[in-house]
Amino acid sequence: MSNRLPTLAIVGATGAVGSVMLDILSTRENVWGEIRLVASPRSAGKRLTVRGTEVEVQALAPEVFDGVDVAMFDVPDSVSAEWAPVAVERGAVAVDNSGAFRMEPDVPLVVPEVNRAQVRNRPRGIISNPNCTTLSMIVAMGALHARFGLEQLVVSSYQAASGSGQEGIDTLRDQTEKVAADRTLGERAGDVRAAAGDLGPFPAPLALNVVPWAGSLKDDGWSSEELKVRNESRKILGLPGLSVSATCVRVPVVTTHALAVHATFSQEVTADAARQLLGAAPGVTVQDDPAAGEFPTPADVVGTDPTWVGRIRQALDDPRSLDLFLCGDNLRKGAALNTAQIAEVVAEEHTTG
Amino acid sequence: MSNRLPTLAIVGATGAVGSVMLDILSTRENVWGEIRLVASPRSAGKRLTVRGTEVEVQALAPEVFDGVDVAMFDVPDSVSAEWAPVAVERGAVAVDNSGAFRMEPDVPLVVPEVNRAQVRNRPRGIISNPNCTTLSMIVAMGALHARFGLEQLVVSSYQAASGSGQEGIDTLRDQTEKVAADRTLGERAGDVRAAAGDLGPFPAPLALNVVPWAGSLKDDGWSSEELKVRNESRKILGLPGLSVSATCVRVPVVTTHALAVHATFSQEVTADAARQLLGAAPGVTVQDDPAAGEFPTPADVVGTDPTWVGRIRQALDDPRSLDLFLCGDNLRKGAALNTAQIAEVVAEEHTTG
Ligand SMILES: NC(=O)c1ccc[n+]([C@@H]2O[C@H](COP(=O)([O-])OP(=O)(O)OC[C@H]3O[C@@H](n4cnc5c(N)ncnc54)[C@H](OP(=O)(O)O)[C@@H]3O)[C@@H](O)[C@H]2O)c1
Ligand SMILES: NC(=O)c1ccc[n+]([C@@H]2O[C@H](COP(=O)([O-])OP(=O)(O)OC[C@H]3O[C@@H](n4cnc5c(N)ncnc54)[C@H](OP(=O)(O)O)[C@@H]3O)[C@@H](O)[C@H]2O)c1
Repeated sequence: MSNRLPTLAIVGATGAVGSVMLDILSTRENVWGEIRLVASPRSAGKRLTVRGTEVEVQALAPEVFDGVDVAMFDVPDSVSAEWAPVAVERGAVAVDNSGAFRMEPDVPLVVPEVNRAQVRNRPRGIISNPNCTTLSMIVAMGALHARFGLEQLVVSSYQAASGSGQEGIDTLRDQTEKVAADRTLGERAGDVRAAAGDLGPFPAPLALNVVPWAGSLKDDGWSSEELKVRNESRKILGLPGLSVSATCVRVPVVTTHALAVHATFSQEVTADAARQLLGAAPGVTVQDDPAAGEFPTPADVVGTDPTWVGRIRQALDDPRSLDLFLCGDNLRKGAALNTAQIAEVVAEEHTTG
Repeated sequence: MSNRLPTLAIVGATGAVGSVMLDILSTRENVWGEIRLVASPRSAGKRLTVRGTEVEVQALAPEVFDGVDVAMFDVPDSVSAEWAPVAVERGAVAVDNSGAFRMEPDVPLVVPEVNRAQVRNRPRGIISNPNCTTLSMIVAMGALHARFGLEQLVVSSYQAASGSGQEGIDTLRDQTEKVAADRTLGERAGDVRAAAGDLGPFPAPLALNVVPWAGSLKDDGWSSEELKVRNESRKILGLPGLSVSATCVRVPVVTTHALAVHATFSQEVTADAARQLLGAAPGVTVQDDPAAGEFPTPADVVGTDPTWVGRIRQALDDPRSLDLFLCGDNLRKGAALNTAQIAEVVAEEHTTG
């Protein structure tokens, strides 16, 4: 047990996830002592505000981790792969938001509402944060699983541009400006493509379109994003045999992922029972009254912490299945917030001994 | 058998579907003799071009059907319900694009590629055209069913604004202009809603958003659109016990519905077998090479006739299930084209006896 508040380093403080992390930390009091901001040498010397104070960004180097208790990594996979072990060597616990370690058997993949105890099970000193698409449903699915026993998930995503970082946001904004200028677009094949200009990180225009692709190509036609939903859901829920089919689709939304989920359980589950259980689950907000026009949409959910759940229906042909529609801010619970929550569990160990 | 080419009436010629119908008919030669254009009294006297000739729009009245062989209805449900029987009384076969008659047991619901023979089974003289969401997948699903035996469908839709008619298109365009003007939108809850202005036919803003609602509220939280996908798929495929769960979601696309489908069959089906079968199926185009960035998107499919299928994957946890992504122009195959195809089957009877 220590009287000193723990020291935190945020690697990737200048990125899309990093910026939201600074906002979130500014709302947390008495958790962290010093907070160090780290990014690439390109950003060294930049000044960012956290908890109302300007802090200078440092270039990533081994020394930035000296004296650090917890190091968060909000950087590309390759940077985490190289630098999280360096942070651990220098004495920090690494909480990594990238895909570098998520499926390693000796690295826990943690969602505090679902498997908080796994935080202590970190032989390598590294804890992974799930992918944003998985995170947009897993808190609600974990609560349902605990009561009804999950057997199968069929997931279709409606993923926001910011899942591809700041470049994704900028691309969607540029394309939206361009296609808004011509009220005839979207009625002939290719006209939106011609008008939208630069595709940025997406393989097809995103404005006035949807793109059934996220991530890289894996075996048998699956995208890396779709396999993450399957593999990470299985690991977080502790269900290595869970049946999961996901189709990941990018939509012209700035931030907040949405998911349509068909979930099958080992026992009957009514919509009312699901609504009641989810209504009481930490980290979940139920918004489900279509008669009053009440269901979650990304534009209304963005910037909030919970996983929002609506359109809860018992499948008409199988009383053990539910159909639901979920929304979660991919930069908050989908990334920065969950990382902050994990880091806070570690910080508690530090201050309580 | 008659030497005269049959006379066609298009009721609703001025609408979103009607306009596309005029385009489609202009590409068909030697099918129709006279073509009469009909709409509400508001449009009477308007002149529209079909097959290169200007034709004056007539106000809907019993006399417009005198001498008509086939009457297409591209109008709201209530107008079809009242006027299709009037057209039949005056001697026409009615081909109805509305929801008024689709589930009537004595009205066939026809997709020529799937159940063409049903056209002759019309005791009331009325033939129904399916809903555009069902039509965006049913040609491909029908081909797969014929070979592998369909047992279950889980469907998530990405539906275009024009599914709500011209008002839907105009609303999306107005909102897109408004949200394009401010590059900070979409990062705080409600800012898109405040900027988007008039919601038009949608229950939430559609620009920079997705809206998990289409149609009206039915029992147990289901939307009418979701039940149409279930009921119409069952009727067209002749599978009254087919298990179907659909979640219908509107996306900011002008025209062309997309669907993510998880389909389970009575026997094993590989992605290659499905690709081969669909590649040879009439009315279907396979575009499935993600390594080359090849998959269908609405912006590239709009204005074309086929159902486009890509992202064909065998489910990793069930060799009898496929995951696919489909796109179809909701105003063409989803409405006008399928109606034109049905009408042409009737016209063939007329000219061949
Ligand atoms: N966006 C999401 O929804 C989301 C959700 C969950 C997880 N993630 C994961 O979180 C990570 C960050 O994503 P993001 O969307 O925030 O990306 P981003 O906006 O592109 O930001 C990347 C950050 O990494 C830093 N960086 C890049 N290369 C570096 C290097 N060689 N050394 C040190 N810092 C470097 C950048 O610093 P400079 O500004 O100096 O270049 C920037 O701070 C990724 O692994 C991503 O997969 C993202
Ligand atoms: N949009 C789609 O993707 C789609 C797909 C499949 C099926 N459908 C169905 O097709 C039908 C037409 O849809 P839409 O999208 O084309 O709608 P729309 O753009 O609103 O057009 C409606 C048409 O109906 C006419 N009309 C309305 N009230 C009338 C009345 N009392 N008497 C005579 N004509 C009247 C209108 O004439 P005025 O111009 O004179 O008002 C106009 O031609 C609907 O039943 C719809 O559900 C639509």
